[in-house]
Amino acid sequence: MTTTAEPAEATRTLSDSDFLTPPAERYFEDYLPGSVYEYGRVNVTAEAIIEFACEWDPQPIHIDPEFAAQGAFGGLIASGLHTTGICMRLFVTHYLSHVASLASPGMDELRWPTPVRPGDLLRLRTTIVSVRPSQSKPDRGLVHTRAELFNQHDEIVLHLLPINILRRRDVGDG
Amino acid sequence: MTTTAEPAEATRTLSDSDFLTPPAERYFEDYLPGSVYEYGRVNVTAEAIIEFACEWDPQPIHIDPEFAAQGAFGGLIASGLHTTGICMRLFVTHYLSHVASLASPGMDELRWPTPVRPGDLLRLRTTIVSVRPSQSKPDRGLVHTRAELFNQHDEIVLHLLPINILRRRDVGDG
Repeated sequence: MTTTAEPAEATRTLSDSDFLTPPAERYFEDYLPGSVYEYGRVNVTAEAIIEFACEWDPQPIHIDPEFAAQGAFGGLIASGLHTTGICMRLFVTHYLSHVASLASPGMDELRWPTPVRPGDLLRLRTTIVSVRPSQSKPDRGLVHTRAELFNQHDEIVLHLLPINILRRRDVGDG
Repeated sequence: MTTTAEPAEATRTLSDSDFLTPPAERYFEDYLPGSVYEYGRVNVTAEAIIEFACEWDPQPIHIDPEFAAQGAFGGLIASGLHTTGICMRLFVTHYLSHVASLASPGMDELRWPTPVRPGDLLRLRTTIVSVRPSQSKPDRGLVHTRAELFNQHDEIVLHLLPINILRRRDVGDG
């Protein structure tokens, strides 16, 4: 299926280091400020770009190859929301705990500095910016991350600052 | 198809006023700071929540109704990215020019203050925050918008600040 967001190499850690615990055993305490990890990769096809955009962002630059070829980008480019979806899928599969994620209030500074084109191979880099135990709820804490998506030319195609609320291990249900 | 983002009432303007020009004839000059418009609505189903999340955000709270029923939200809730997709589809269909949109650098302050649940009926409110002609490129300008998605109880389920670059009419290709 051309639209799947499943990474081509689904369990590959691209960085030298990774979390000490797998996602199924990962809690708030495992997110250490300054840690940098990479995951991926996801291949982007023209079919996937068009299919996603037809449903969520049907602008001609995303769904009409002939129109896009005449435009400023010289060809089809992915919807920014599609790129964000690829980022989120890698983030949820590899970075975010599968057992301790309670909620996300949102994300900041979403930017698409380089267009994503058919054939691009994308990888996620996560940098843990800050962590803070909740003042009001002792069973959880807040994690601020910088997430960056790179293409095969090492250009940043997306960056954003997600916020996640994670359960603490010592008072969790583990 | 249960997953379609096509608004149930696709061309309905919910606010008292709307742009003087339809999306196919809308340029930078038509975006007047302080203007507020509403568009919609989009019905959210459990099937759509699960289908979207299985591909882009496969966390149990979004894809496993039994797990979700035992959780903090007491049932299935939509992925924040799904809610963002519904917002973007309404934004692109009704608010953004169909002929003058050149690019979007990104968006700020994405927040999901209220969960989206099966059966919710969502509408978009756009408020034009500021507009500024480009200093370097006289054929275009920047539009900053506040976009809010409301449910049927008039609760805000999503707000964000998109940035759009739009072509000017007087120097455009019209």
